Amino acid sequence: MSSYAAPLRDLRFVLEELLEHRSLRLPEYQELSEELVTAIIEEASRLAGEVWAPLNRRGDEQGCRLENGEVHTPTGFAEAYRAFAEGGWNGIGSDPAHGGQGLPEVVASAVQEMWHSANMALALCPLLTAGAVEALAQHGSEELKSRYLEKLISGEWTGTMNLTEPQAGSDLSMVRTRAVPEDAHYRLSGQKIFITWGEHDCADNIIHLVLARLPDAAEGNRGISLFLVPKFLVDEQGRLGKRNDVSCVSLEHKLGIHGSPTCVLSFGEHEGAIGYLVGEPGRGLQHMFTMMNAARHKVGIQGIGVAERAYQQARAYAAERVQGRTPEARGGRPAVLSEHYDVRRMLLSMRARLESLRALALLSASEMDHARHASTEDERQRAQQRADLYTPVVKAFSTDQAVDITSLGIQVHGGMGYIEETGAAQYLRDARIAPIYEGTNGIQALDLAGRKIYRDGGAVLSGVLDEVAACADALTAEAQLADLGVSLHQGVVDLRRAVAIVLARGDDSDALQALATPLLALTGHVLCAWQMGRAALIAQTALVTGDDEAFYRAKLASADFVLRQWLPIGRAQLAAIEANPGVLDEAW
Amino acid sequence: MSSYAAPLRDLRFVLEELLEHRSLRLPEYQELSEELVTAIIEEASRLAGEVWAPLNRRGDEQGCRLENGEVHTPTGFAEAYRAFAEGGWNGIGSDPAHGGQGLPEVVASAVQEMWHSANMALALCPLLTAGAVEALAQHGSEELKSRYLEKLISGEWTGTMNLTEPQAGSDLSMVRTRAVPEDAHYRLSGQKIFITWGEHDCADNIIHLVLARLPDAAEGNRGISLFLVPKFLVDEQGRLGKRNDVSCVSLEHKLGIHGSPTCVLSFGEHEGAIGYLVGEPGRGLQHMFTMMNAARHKVGIQGIGVAERAYQQARAYAAERVQGRTPEARGGRPAVLSEHYDVRRMLLSMRARLESLRALALLSASEMDHARHASTEDERQRAQQRADLYTPVVKAFSTDQAVDITSLGIQVHGGMGYIEETGAAQYLRDARIAPIYEGTNGIQALDLAGRKIYRDGGAVLSGVLDEVAACADALTAEAQLADLGVSLHQGVVDLRRAVAIVLARGDDSDALQALATPLLALTGHVLCAWQMGRAALIAQTALVTGDDEAFYRAKLASADFVLRQWLPIGRAQLAAIEANPGVLDEAW
Repeated sequence: MSSYAAPLRDLRFVLEELLEHRSLRLPEYQELSEELVTAIIEEASRLAGEVWAPLNRRGDEQGCRLENGEVHTPTGFAEAYRAFAEGGWNGIGSDPAHGGQGLPEVVASAVQEMWHSANMALALCPLLTAGAVEALAQHGSEELKSRYLEKLISGEWTGTMNLTEPQAGSDLSMVRTRAVPEDAHYRLSGQKIFITWGEHDCADNIIHLVLARLPDAAEGNRGISLFLVPKFLVDEQGRLGKRNDVSCVSLEHKLGIHGSPTCVLSFGEHEGAIGYLVGEPGRGLQHMFTMMNAARHKVGIQGIGVAERAYQQARAYAAERVQGRTPEARGGRPAVLSEHYDVRRMLLSMRARLESLRALALLSASEMDHARHASTEDERQRAQQRADLYTPVVKAFSTDQAVDITSLGIQVHGGMGYIEETGAAQYLRDARIAPIYEGTNGIQALDLAGRKIYRDGGAVLSGVLDEVAACADALTAEAQLADLGVSLHQGVVDLRRAVAIVLARGDDSDALQALATPLLALTGHVLCAWQMGRAALIAQTALVTGDDEAFYRAKLASADFVLRQWLPIGRAQLAAIEANPGVLDEAW
Repeated sequence: MSSYAAPLRDLRFVLEELLEHRSLRLPEYQELSEELVTAIIEEASRLAGEVWAPLNRRGDEQGCRLENGEVHTPTGFAEAYRAFAEGGWNGIGSDPAHGGQGLPEVVASAVQEMWHSANMALALCPLLTAGAVEALAQHGSEELKSRYLEKLISGEWTGTMNLTEPQAGSDLSMVRTRAVPEDAHYRLSGQKIFITWGEHDCADNIIHLVLARLPDAAEGNRGISLFLVPKFLVDEQGRLGKRNDVSCVSLEHKLGIHGSPTCVLSFGEHEGAIGYLVGEPGRGLQHMFTMMNAARHKVGIQGIGVAERAYQQARAYAAERVQGRTPEARGGRPAVLSEHYDVRRMLLSMRARLESLRALALLSASEMDHARHASTEDERQRAQQRADLYTPVVKAFSTDQAVDITSLGIQVHGGMGYIEETGAAQYLRDARIAPIYEGTNGIQALDLAGRKIYRDGGAVLSGVLDEVAACADALTAEAQLADLGVSLHQGVVDLRRAVAIVLARGDDSDALQALATPLLALTGHVLCAWQMGRAALIAQTALVTGDDEAFYRAKLASADFVLRQWLPIGRAQLAAIEANPGVLDEAW
């Protein structure tokens, strides 16, 4: 069985050296020391490695069972979840006013990666709860907040997002679930599908956030409101009352994340499920997007997490498995897999991409911290714009890469990778959901091309690219890194050209759709290469002082791979961006 | 449930227009008419679509069971296999002297694609039998041939390849299974793993071809011999006798191809399994490679087959599923998925790549036909060299692409793609084995870089590239295809540069390993683009006459995608080929 050890050295490199702990310099976090952050990360790594990770295979094998409306999660999941909640991990990024730890998003993100590496199926539970917390904190009434928020933040209760219906997937304007007013609450009826952790045995209550329509609601998006529907009703003293009229009628049989119950939830089969309006009527979609934006970033982190686990297992296997011999020039003796250069190429490709994706995801998290807590409105706005720009890239690019990296992890194992007991295949099966949920990666690409680039004339991205170009110049000025600088500079040129095409074609939504996915890939490549360019500069300097030489040499190899071997593949997306969208006109 | 209709129009395009039925002009096939080939392909498509395809999901769900040493395949598999054997499909490419149909490899390959689309797990059974037939026909004694070959060719009996042992995967020099001479036969003992269709209930006998060592054998590769070990002994009249001492001791629990029993076979647990030497002692590996080379081509076809099925299902789903609306410019009305340009991009990417891979695989098959039957030794040798060059590319590039295409098929389905009942996920799970078995794709890349390019100084590939360049010139001369020609020409330049690097570094096997996989990808891209360039020229001419306009317009769109959007991604592999292999030197 594969073990998991959190990549503490690389996480610290990103937080301390690449980001220079910039979130800790915000006034909000002045009492948080670097030492405390390190201690937190190390503590989390123990729970992840020792408690969550060993359950990962079992969760896949056992899956979840639905019996008499009760969902039984895999053996050990409930205890592992409770250990997590009792350790205070659920609310580490949440508001201290409601019992959260109030840590910066960048630290919370670093910790979240570990949960997803250790046990992606179980980690989905707090991921969804965090979305519910966010929506409730921002849009819920004081009464709803006082009754529900604290227990959601502590993890004593968990949360869900109820969006999808059989006829309403990516297009939520088709939602049909109804909410009828009654006294101080509403009665909901309808069916929701694909509800992650919609029913389970790991917590005492489950708080569903549900999109539904009021009786007199307009058609389309503007007729949708957001409701809170608890599994067990909660009285004014916070005590659990009777079971609400919501039930799990079936579990999906999925490719992966078997330990995560994906439920069909039926609301109001009897008297109607009691629900409470969250925020304003008709603004349900906007309120839900509050949850989804945070969740999108977290799904990107999830992709990194599961791919990191796949990498660790592949690396360990390659270091042990004897197969073939070294070349005669290296002695012609029996060799382990990782002595073969084709295998090293696979391992470096996995590691280097992961390091670059991690750096980008944590950069994005640090912008979220600044968007909330920077001293001036200008700084907050600038940071928010950058976080908004990065979010679809972190979600889609990290998860697309996660599918590829976990697949490569299978390949490193050869035939053993195809045998389920090895565990390598599970990572691919688990990872494959991430490009789909929380908005498919195609939706992320449209968001990037339309809302994040076209709408502001490319201004925010252009500002970022100025910094990327400066990084390229700094690399070019270092003799040993000059080639990396040249390559990064070419990436900047290509992405600027792509932006010009977006601006020229943006009025035509078909043309924008046709280029959106390759545009997102190119953007992801350039942003990742930027982070690795910065990492190379730091590593080059660190090697002069000589501490931790192996780490910095490996970091330089990763940077070399990302900038000189991987970025060109991203740049090749420009051809698809430049292509005439008319090639897609034929009827299908 | 998804249905399957063989891509008859495209298969005919490749056979008739792209290859101009060149195999049929060989003297060997002078009695075979184009009409008969068409009739054969249409007949096969009925069996594949009506009998094999409906069993595909059930095979995945039921899998195989081992009970008291007997393997039970999924319900319906035995009948479907018998219908196939009785229809004469098993031996369509085999020697008529032993009851085969003696059809050209290019026709057999076209038909094989259908079996793999319809039911990849079941299609593996005849794929392995074909390997056994090949090895026996080329290396077996007359007695062995007369006793076993006819029933293997008819499909009444099936064949297996027994190479892998727990300690001997890609490196077969580590094989430990022993063969001790006794009278006119040998007694074998040892354990073999990953034996596809090693035991089953679809045929009366199973003929195992087994790598083992004689008692006095040398260590390493030269000590390995090839043996034939029947499940039931066969007497001189061809009647089945007693059970041989070989048994299935367990079935692997795999990511996919659940309908294909992957066995651990134990030879000689009691008195020793009776086996017969095939070919010369100590030349077992060479003889086995006879099987593997044919099987490698077939595994490439398999990748195309399973990806074609994934494409058909994605296209059908996208044409039905209503989600979102068309842009206002196109009416702003409810739209099916395939009206969205991001979905069209995915569908075109799947289709165009498939068409190009199919064209390359059938080109390679036609070279095999010429290698066997061309009139002059020169022609035969030239064709063999080309088939040898193409084989690792067809195997590895088609199967790597199959993994990506089947994964994209899931993405087209959105959330439904992740639900097993939809069937889309099965194609990815099934496809994922193909880059691993019959020599991992890394092994294929080493074969290409070392044996197929470095060893002859790049001469054979250079000859091919001259033809690719001529195709690029022809495209450039057509005003409407000129951009495609420019792109193809750039591909030629890049691949020539890559060959120069191989020749410069080829003495250093580490350096060759470091670039082998990107080299194979670039080669695959250029060869596929060449085929689509030729297809574009044909389609452009056909459009003038005006018949079947929709097909040729779609073909032009596929060619445009392959040459202008996909080839640049292949060309970007040059950066990895040029990279300093020293970046891989660090210890792992």
